Amino acid sequence: MKTVTIHAAGDLRIDDHREETPGEKQVEIAVAAGGICGSDLHYYRHGGFGVVRLREPMILGHEVSGVVQTVGSGVSAVRAGDLVAINPSRPCGDCDYCQRGLQNHCRNMLFYGSAMRFPHVQGAFRERLIVEESQCFALPAGTSIHEAAFAEPFAVALHAVSQAGPLIARRALVTGCGPIGALVIVAARFHGAMEIVATDVVDEALEKAIRVGADRAINVAREPEAMAEYAAGKGSFDVMFEASGNEAALRSGLDALRPRGILVQLGLGGEVTIPQNLIVAKELNIRGSFRFHEEFALAAALIGQRRVDLRPLLTHTLPLSDAKEAFDLAGDRKRAMKVQLLFGGDREAFPHRPDA
Amino acid sequence: MKTVTIHAAGDLRIDDHREETPGEKQVEIAVAAGGICGSDLHYYRHGGFGVVRLREPMILGHEVSGVVQTVGSGVSAVRAGDLVAINPSRPCGDCDYCQRGLQNHCRNMLFYGSAMRFPHVQGAFRERLIVEESQCFALPAGTSIHEAAFAEPFAVALHAVSQAGPLIARRALVTGCGPIGALVIVAARFHGAMEIVATDVVDEALEKAIRVGADRAINVAREPEAMAEYAAGKGSFDVMFEASGNEAALRSGLDALRPRGILVQLGLGGEVTIPQNLIVAKELNIRGSFRFHEEFALAAALIGQRRVDLRPLLTHTLPLSDAKEAFDLAGDRKRAMKVQLLFGGDREAFPHRPDA
Amino acid sequence: MKTVTIHAAGDLRIDDHREETPGEKQVEIAVAAGGICGSDLHYYRHGGFGVVRLREPMILGHEVSGVVQTVGSGVSAVRAGDLVAINPSRPCGDCDYCQRGLQNHCRNMLFYGSAMRFPHVQGAFRERLIVEESQCFALPAGTSIHEAAFAEPFAVALHAVSQAGPLIARRALVTGCGPIGALVIVAARFHGAMEIVATDVVDEALEKAIRVGADRAINVAREPEAMAEYAAGKGSFDVMFEASGNEAALRSGLDALRPRGILVQLGLGGEVTIPQNLIVAKELNIRGSFRFHEEFALAAALIGQRRVDLRPLLTHTLPLSDAKEAFDLAGDRKRAMKVQLLFGGDREAFPHRPDA
Amino acid sequence: MKTVTIHAAGDLRIDDHREETPGEKQVEIAVAAGGICGSDLHYYRHGGFGVVRLREPMILGHEVSGVVQTVGSGVSAVRAGDLVAINPSRPCGDCDYCQRGLQNHCRNMLFYGSAMRFPHVQGAFRERLIVEESQCFALPAGTSIHEAAFAEPFAVALHAVSQAGPLIARRALVTGCGPIGALVIVAARFHGAMEIVATDVVDEALEKAIRVGADRAINVAREPEAMAEYAAGKGSFDVMFEASGNEAALRSGLDALRPRGILVQLGLGGEVTIPQNLIVAKELNIRGSFRFHEEFALAAALIGQRRVDLRPLLTHTLPLSDAKEAFDLAGDRKRAMKVQLLFGGDREAFPHRPDA
Repeated sequence: MKTVTIHAAGDLRIDDHREETPGEKQVEIAVAAGGICGSDLHYYRHGGFGVVRLREPMILGHEVSGVVQTVGSGVSAVRAGDLVAINPSRPCGDCDYCQRGLQNHCRNMLFYGSAMRFPHVQGAFRERLIVEESQCFALPAGTSIHEAAFAEPFAVALHAVSQAGPLIARRALVTGCGPIGALVIVAARFHGAMEIVATDVVDEALEKAIRVGADRAINVAREPEAMAEYAAGKGSFDVMFEASGNEAALRSGLDALRPRGILVQLGLGGEVTIPQNLIVAKELNIRGSFRFHEEFALAAALIGQRRVDLRPLLTHTLPLSDAKEAFDLAGDRKRAMKVQLLFGGDREAFPHRPDA
Repeated sequence: MKTVTIHAAGDLRIDDHREETPGEKQVEIAVAAGGICGSDLHYYRHGGFGVVRLREPMILGHEVSGVVQTVGSGVSAVRAGDLVAINPSRPCGDCDYCQRGLQNHCRNMLFYGSAMRFPHVQGAFRERLIVEESQCFALPAGTSIHEAAFAEPFAVALHAVSQAGPLIARRALVTGCGPIGALVIVAARFHGAMEIVATDVVDEALEKAIRVGADRAINVAREPEAMAEYAAGKGSFDVMFEASGNEAALRSGLDALRPRGILVQLGLGGEVTIPQNLIVAKELNIRGSFRFHEEFALAAALIGQRRVDLRPLLTHTLPLSDAKEAFDLAGDRKRAMKVQLLFGGDREAFPHRPDA
Repeated sequence: MKTVTIHAAGDLRIDDHREETPGEKQVEIAVAAGGICGSDLHYYRHGGFGVVRLREPMILGHEVSGVVQTVGSGVSAVRAGDLVAINPSRPCGDCDYCQRGLQNHCRNMLFYGSAMRFPHVQGAFRERLIVEESQCFALPAGTSIHEAAFAEPFAVALHAVSQAGPLIARRALVTGCGPIGALVIVAARFHGAMEIVATDVVDEALEKAIRVGADRAINVAREPEAMAEYAAGKGSFDVMFEASGNEAALRSGLDALRPRGILVQLGLGGEVTIPQNLIVAKELNIRGSFRFHEEFALAAALIGQRRVDLRPLLTHTLPLSDAKEAFDLAGDRKRAMKVQLLFGGDREAFPHRPDA
Repeated sequence: MKTVTIHAAGDLRIDDHREETPGEKQVEIAVAAGGICGSDLHYYRHGGFGVVRLREPMILGHEVSGVVQTVGSGVSAVRAGDLVAINPSRPCGDCDYCQRGLQNHCRNMLFYGSAMRFPHVQGAFRERLIVEESQCFALPAGTSIHEAAFAEPFAVALHAVSQAGPLIARRALVTGCGPIGALVIVAARFHGAMEIVATDVVDEALEKAIRVGADRAINVAREPEAMAEYAAGKGSFDVMFEASGNEAALRSGLDALRPRGILVQLGLGGEVTIPQNLIVAKELNIRGSFRFHEEFALAAALIGQRRVDLRPLLTHTLPLSDAKEAFDLAGDRKRAMKVQLLFGGDREAFPHRPDA
């Protein structure tokens, strides 16, 4: 079968890989759609990020949907023909973090397409995938393979929003409107936020932000003074979701937060300088948010019940054979929001047609 | 009456000030002891800090005890002769923050000896002081004027520790062992912390840290590698109290915190650079802590009941007339921990003798 | 002007009352619509409830909307012609509970139409009403007087739901589908509950429950065994809202709650017997919910923005002159859900037409 | 080896039982001391409690200390000669509750000496015991076998107190001063409670309550009016720990709790009648507390470090051969607080002498 494998920065290949057979509690998946994530792009462009570097070829991808082909004898939750969202996160369940319900901090985490460990954990951009039954979340008829492939990044957004505490009656700022920032807007609206202001430097991203629920979109490159009104008094926002990794966005947000305001950090931007005195005087609260755990099931359920509509965020679908073009496109924020690769899983097995 | 008044950076004077008469719900205090705080030192050395600058002469001081002289006709909580700790914080009670129980963020706060507002709020380093009844917290016989003057900085420490959530069974790191850091150690022990590690660059401060309850004291100037053991695995500490304002202390602490660890920031150090990726990957939580509200009553009660013993932290007491020497001493971390001025309140009125 | 005044159990009269003039920060309201609440019915039927008994004639009513007529010289938030929802809750702002943000437990609460204090606090079922500016919440054009009069009971429901902690991804049981139970369903849906099961003994109430968002409605009188499936294993529901005051509903809900499940009690049912061993073994959590505070503003905003649609719950509107009939109707659960009295406020002043 | 086995209500026997050999990760313990708990007494007197009934002979006991004899080849945490407290709780680690950190609600819990499951889980009142390494908590030299055997009931108390939220600056009421109530007093003091009032109907129990940290002890049988002062206003206590299972104690406590007060229920008293209107009007919060999980390690650590002193609560130690007398004594509240059986473990192996 074919895979999308990164060999080094810039060296993305369609490789062949042997097929495997599912064990008793395992499921064989024909992969259907796979979203390209920011971390995939980092491996593609830079060969890694921070201290995480490629040391061997690695199949990319962790945002995939697929169609169940065969199931092991002990599997009861799904059956052949089911459209499923695949949870790429496989915590050990035994370590101290897992036993305290903090599985996203598992000491022995296996996460698809990640070079954090060595040997690297191979990813899900491949035609066939063997997964544990517990990784499969079946979606109802009427859900597309594309929506299903949003379960993973939407779980990231739901996890981040849940870090902020209740959003009911709260005013929220979202800085950075790439796919994750946009999904945070959807999640914050679902969590009951009263008002959502979104900022970015790309108009096309801000248009999507409005489309999925932001009340106001500010292009801080063209309107550098627009945030000042929110910083008046002691500040305006109860919570802030920083999804840009940009220091200027972070700092203008700190000014605009109210005393006891909460900043949830998702964006990965390296070293940032912050004003310690402001953190102290306003008793601001900065919280990192990393991946997800129980939010994957929630994401799949909300998508399947169409309580949220993520379809506006999908801008392009390309076949596996055009993976390189897809990756280049995914890095162009003026043209693309979410780009998905098509692995053929649906063509042979299940009538989930792309809706774009 | 005499006051300790700052006119400009370096220009500290013993000025004369007219006396006042208490109103119906007010109390006249003969000030007894007054601790010199870091912010007093900032005015003395630099004429302010950050954007807060002296614009007119200001009486310093907000850590004072005193003896009740006369009371207004409507006062029932205290009476002449009582030793009291004076709460220097006077929130308005009416603004939206006060009405939500966040009085330390009052929009109209009057806090003794602060140049945040103009005209500045005059402080409590003076022989006589008129206060509201609600600012007075009577202490039982057996409490010294010196312990009483610790109620304010101890309230700061208690507030900070309460921001960290439950400390029972938790391991805590305290970076910076000046008076506030040392009081945080006392407060963290009272809150039930299982283990407390303290760091500083001054041995004399670390000796005090051990004296008041730290389990281990590390001089990070002499043992720069000592913190590395705590950073192993995913980190060791559940909570960290940053009381140095020092960037290196902050960063080594972030490495030593466990996933979901909480850093309470008290120290005021200006701009600091932090690794955003670490905040995200470990889901660290940084919380500013600013002053106090209900913790003042708690501090006075714990001191009065001798559930905590803060006396080891007092290193010097000097008469009002030696204020300049006292300020210079308070800035010398090798010689002094807490330096208190004596205003004579107890000599004429009440037998609370210094215990040092 | 005319008022709806209760003189004793069963003795409801249309009385005349002198008009008043607004003070500087006050507003004169032409009352438009007023919903009849369960506590109004208790005064009408029984002359009170529990230890709260009528000791003098009292104007009833606390769920009213109206149109601003004149405003005091210091009023800026509303102006003549505005449709407003009136907050009937007037905490003192000064007591210890108010200063901790627990205004619904104010020691000096004045709440419209309540006999808890003596003299009783007169209510809002009257043609003209003088209120504080802070009690007025203006609603946008397009909102009806009827929706505006739902702000108060919806605030009760929002407060109750907020007591349960986050509802995202949670399964909820609502026992009792009178107006409050039905509004709890709307509030729980807004708070993101994944699944809502409603129970009652009246089919007409259960139809409304489904109409406003319940996923399943169970008539426990006709299907006494239906709840058993939810009690299997260790129980099924994460949270429960008890709005019936009925002991059997409470007990069947305790069986159906999961370990650490939360029961929010709103219904007022007198003495109830509960199984202490079950509370302990499942570590269940029972929380009373009483009135509201900040939720009034939220209720008005959600109604005004039509983020919730409460119109299906209004079943009858009757003129002030038919108050007695309206009260009898409000007590008949087979015929009525919410019954509102019309006080004429909109006819002369503002084009908010009833939508029923 | 000999065991203390219950065959039916009143039929307690010293039986013989075959010895076992430890597996790779297991430890062989010579049991030293074993405290008799209320549930042991229930089996002895009534053959069970509630729906939990004896259906086969069962070795009793779950509060034991012992001395390590031999260890399996994979054991590293303890070694021969160590005095250990034995955690009788063995959650599966895999079920949904375990994976959320709620191991005390494990769906497959094995807890020593419990008839909840069938076959029953045999207990620890025996001369030799094979345990998992993870059940062993080594205690430092200087700790007695008697203190070590308090780890389990003290863990119950610590778990209960942690359910109440922060106790710093809070006033607490403890109703029922048997061993669990008395240990709750110790735990609440350790958690920083400002004031603790204890009630019971037995003077001897109240004397112990004062001895271990209560500020005031009230015999509600002799002073039935004493609680009324605490019910004045809106009530006095922030938290209440109900350890009697007595309905009158529960009700007088509800009156004495303040609005938003928290009642943690530990006592098992069957059906109790509560005033629903009071729960609602004061927004009281009733929380069950069941066993413990991470608190066992904490209990062992606090005992080992002598941060708490539980020795005053031990009133009697009797040899295994006098088990029946020990059980009768444990049920006599006027004579006994905690009664421990001696299994001989220390005589042959380790010099931990009883301190009574």
